[in-house]
Amino acid sequence: MEYQTVLNQIQQEFSKVQPSGKVASYIPELAKVPPSKFGMHMYDIDGNNYHFGDSFERFSIQSISKVFTLSLAMKMVGDDLWNRVGVEPSGDPFNSLSQLENDSGIPRNPYINAGALVVADVLVSYFTNPKAALLAFLHEITGDTSIGFNETVAASEKAEGYRNFALVNYLKSFGNIENNVEDVLDFYFHQCSISMSCRELAQAFIIYANHGTLLNSEREFLTGRQVKRMNALMQTCGFYDEAGEFSFEVGLPGKSGVGGGIVAVNPNHYAVAVWSPPLNPKGNSALGMAALERLTTLTGYSIF
Amino acid sequence: MEYQTVLNQIQQEFSKVQPSGKVASYIPELAKVPPSKFGMHMYDIDGNNYHFGDSFERFSIQSISKVFTLSLAMKMVGDDLWNRVGVEPSGDPFNSLSQLENDSGIPRNPYINAGALVVADVLVSYFTNPKAALLAFLHEITGDTSIGFNETVAASEKAEGYRNFALVNYLKSFGNIENNVEDVLDFYFHQCSISMSCRELAQAFIIYANHGTLLNSEREFLTGRQVKRMNALMQTCGFYDEAGEFSFEVGLPGKSGVGGGIVAVNPNHYAVAVWSPPLNPKGNSALGMAALERLTTLTGYSIF
Amino acid sequence: MEYQTVLNQIQQEFSKVQPSGKVASYIPELAKVPPSKFGMHMYDIDGNNYHFGDSFERFSIQSISKVFTLSLAMKMVGDDLWNRVGVEPSGDPFNSLSQLENDSGIPRNPYINAGALVVADVLVSYFTNPKAALLAFLHEITGDTSIGFNETVAASEKAEGYRNFALVNYLKSFGNIENNVEDVLDFYFHQCSISMSCRELAQAFIIYANHGTLLNSEREFLTGRQVKRMNALMQTCGFYDEAGEFSFEVGLPGKSGVGGGIVAVNPNHYAVAVWSPPLNPKGNSALGMAALERLTTLTGYSIF
Amino acid sequence: MEYQTVLNQIQQEFSKVQPSGKVASYIPELAKVPPSKFGMHMYDIDGNNYHFGDSFERFSIQSISKVFTLSLAMKMVGDDLWNRVGVEPSGDPFNSLSQLENDSGIPRNPYINAGALVVADVLVSYFTNPKAALLAFLHEITGDTSIGFNETVAASEKAEGYRNFALVNYLKSFGNIENNVEDVLDFYFHQCSISMSCRELAQAFIIYANHGTLLNSEREFLTGRQVKRMNALMQTCGFYDEAGEFSFEVGLPGKSGVGGGIVAVNPNHYAVAVWSPPLNPKGNSALGMAALERLTTLTGYSIF
Repeated sequence: MEYQTVLNQIQQEFSKVQPSGKVASYIPELAKVPPSKFGMHMYDIDGNNYHFGDSFERFSIQSISKVFTLSLAMKMVGDDLWNRVGVEPSGDPFNSLSQLENDSGIPRNPYINAGALVVADVLVSYFTNPKAALLAFLHEITGDTSIGFNETVAASEKAEGYRNFALVNYLKSFGNIENNVEDVLDFYFHQCSISMSCRELAQAFIIYANHGTLLNSEREFLTGRQVKRMNALMQTCGFYDEAGEFSFEVGLPGKSGVGGGIVAVNPNHYAVAVWSPPLNPKGNSALGMAALERLTTLTGYSIF
Repeated sequence: MEYQTVLNQIQQEFSKVQPSGKVASYIPELAKVPPSKFGMHMYDIDGNNYHFGDSFERFSIQSISKVFTLSLAMKMVGDDLWNRVGVEPSGDPFNSLSQLENDSGIPRNPYINAGALVVADVLVSYFTNPKAALLAFLHEITGDTSIGFNETVAASEKAEGYRNFALVNYLKSFGNIENNVEDVLDFYFHQCSISMSCRELAQAFIIYANHGTLLNSEREFLTGRQVKRMNALMQTCGFYDEAGEFSFEVGLPGKSGVGGGIVAVNPNHYAVAVWSPPLNPKGNSALGMAALERLTTLTGYSIF
Repeated sequence: MEYQTVLNQIQQEFSKVQPSGKVASYIPELAKVPPSKFGMHMYDIDGNNYHFGDSFERFSIQSISKVFTLSLAMKMVGDDLWNRVGVEPSGDPFNSLSQLENDSGIPRNPYINAGALVVADVLVSYFTNPKAALLAFLHEITGDTSIGFNETVAASEKAEGYRNFALVNYLKSFGNIENNVEDVLDFYFHQCSISMSCRELAQAFIIYANHGTLLNSEREFLTGRQVKRMNALMQTCGFYDEAGEFSFEVGLPGKSGVGGGIVAVNPNHYAVAVWSPPLNPKGNSALGMAALERLTTLTGYSIF
Repeated sequence: MEYQTVLNQIQQEFSKVQPSGKVASYIPELAKVPPSKFGMHMYDIDGNNYHFGDSFERFSIQSISKVFTLSLAMKMVGDDLWNRVGVEPSGDPFNSLSQLENDSGIPRNPYINAGALVVADVLVSYFTNPKAALLAFLHEITGDTSIGFNETVAASEKAEGYRNFALVNYLKSFGNIENNVEDVLDFYFHQCSISMSCRELAQAFIIYANHGTLLNSEREFLTGRQVKRMNALMQTCGFYDEAGEFSFEVGLPGKSGVGGGIVAVNPNHYAVAVWSPPLNPKGNSALGMAALERLTTLTGYSIF
């Protein structure tokens, strides 16, 4: 079946479904988003675009940003990064502090909040202006310089981010944060506030399907080995304590955010992004997971 | 590069390497195995065999047996199985009891010991003679009726298996074991004692690379959906607290055992088994992991 | 106020109170006991007895037996005991396994089940006939040779004791059990099955109020230092995760059992036992705790 | 033996002992204190003073301050306090965060750091000027208005207090902190910085030995019930994960601080303070604990 035919069918199948779950409400900006928003965008390695619904509308990418910051940190500091953060799935929720206590402040992986904060600290150490550097990276891989932070979202995250303040102070008590707590959190809350559309996310994630380079480009953003690492980490750790379920239902490496976005990668084939704000009890987009399950079932194409 | 050429190169690369790590010694039969044993066998979906070293010699498959019992249980009881065991990776060691306390006796996944004991209980409930049923299953997928239990190994496991006795009693205290503790453990210790060679393991695992059927056969052992589930579980949970590292280094679903064996699957391409007894600190074959990493690197063929 | 007057007042105050809570029901023999049973018995160091209600009726002492086995083990092996079991309160429930995982199989204290099982193992190692030795000890301190095990209770405990089977196997996996699992549990289930009355318990506990000796006796069962240790352990660990609350409400060292009994000690003054089967949510006799609170309030006599 | 004779003997016994252990060094001001400092001061309910060594020299009371803030909070808000903090011992270290995760942000007791931070928050809510109110309380019970904060110590604590920043943010994420994180920590770091001598501490703690009132005074600072509560909490929770050992060795309710001070109470008899900076591995004054053990042994007077 053609990819666009598959997407059309997915759109149709879910058009009458009332999205179950609840829109994230811990900050006002997320709570305001209409729960009926629904879009999907696939970008394949031949450069074709397939899409439906609200695929051009930007939303808060939240934890999906962790993929970008990790890529940038891997590129900049290489394997030294793994002295400060692990690569194993955690059985705990994304914002748990307990695991750190047993492991002397080394987060289990870069996709739980603790790990993402260490990655943020690495970038704050490396760049004079880490926020500008992150945007420059996104502008380059998407070719769209209008992607930016949502300052209102960032400010709201900061106002309610006690758990993240706790995590970064706790990490610092173990010596695993080099910079000021405030600087690390300022960067982290900004990275989470980035707004992108499904289309832009699919285009940005194509590098993980295309051996680290953009299509029709000589420029290698990540080495083949680094891409393998990125995909392995998305596969085993990209969905908090629902990584196994996503692996099983969808069978692709991917990353979700509480804004209702999910991006997934089929190496050598395509990157795909889906957006539907209502979240299941584990904090992942309910409709987004269902749509991706249909995609790999209808195309007969998961990594398994 | 041809598969056999790749295997030859791997054999050559590691021929002068002193295998680091320690052979499992908690039972005498495992401790007796020469640490220098080394073999690898690949079986592709066109029916070709590639191999080197001690690939025809049988060894104790130990936890690799969990893949066979899970397949059998999924086939027999279907999705009801997931009411009694989860599908998410655990951040804890394979024989941890702590997680059960928080989750009311539901093991995080079928590949930690607690989960495998629940799966064993399911088979003990289902079959009049579960040990015979397991062997029949193995005989059918390998075509080799000489595969059997090693009673000496099974007896040794039982004599030293206090942790497993603890686990199954603990599970029963939560009501998640239906049968007598002794019957469940007798089955479990026998499944771990099965002896198979790399060649036989590769042939048995071809069903996970071939949509659930043997090559040149109409007979479907598992449905496509069940195979997807098996591969997802091997990917995220097959290597205890080294699942992420294996995913990243090798990039294939797989399962290891403390006998030094590892089997991995490249869906639609091949199944491959490797054997080298010395284990790394996480309990996985050190040389086995290295050999598989070379395999996917040299073939340029991981799932990522 | 005279002690008997105090006891009379307590009896009167609670005579119209419907005992809240639930009688322990995990074994049939405990479930059968009428919830309205209520008795209290005080024995002071001048040899006077004060009592009311069902204070002469025997009931299942359950975990109160841990005080007797610990006393016997301290007497026999001395301070070496503390290499195998700790003396610190545990924040966990009485039958938790998690703590052992972090502490390499050393139970936090002798009054959680894991600790009591280690103490049982010590006695099984020390005595040729540990069950007879325990009864002999009780016969000697109470002067009553009719105290014995309730074999029906012991058999029921065994039939339902999966958590304890789990604990002892787990301890053995850490090397902290010397004997056969079955032998240790047989002893443990028997010690819990002992039947004694409030009167007998108060008389047995007088040694902890009287520097380790019976009244009017030269015979020292425990040294002064050992008695201090016993009282300190009852104070900090005698009520599972309600030790702090008991300390605060009652202010005396004590020990409870799920049979509804509680024994407490006012050093240099008296030992007192109370019995009322309905348990509060933490597993301690609800009325028993209230009665002891009234006792120390009315007498103005807690250790604090 | 006369109390002064006992103190003289303790001084003599330990005069040639090299204090083992290490002086707290996480902030410069504590590290500077000479390890050889050693003093002890007893104040009995007849108003007599007994002492030796450096008993008039002020030192940083650190966690001993938690007794004062808890007393003040109990006095001000009564039993509502126990909705926000528990009364049970914790098996975890004093600055653990893990327990909070299981108990929804309710600290196990007021003497672990998390609990003391909640108590601090209560006082910050209650008083317009909580720091002044705390000093006023201390000035009143000691009659010495020169007791104050050490601003250098408070500033150092703040500079290194990442674990406490983590704790209070974590508590706030559960809704168990009402005020600004900064205000709560400012108060907390100041309370820890208070300097008092053994003499002043013994005089301040006499209220816990004298039913809540100063000697020769009508003024009740705490009710009899509140004093019972204070002593029970010191008994079961005053020494972090060494509460059981202190109970057993010393047998008195007490509280230690990392400045090397320990204060203990023998209800109806005396309060006693000891100071020796080197700490044992659990963070309590090594010599201080030994001196108090000798005190209760030589006087034959523990609560047990």
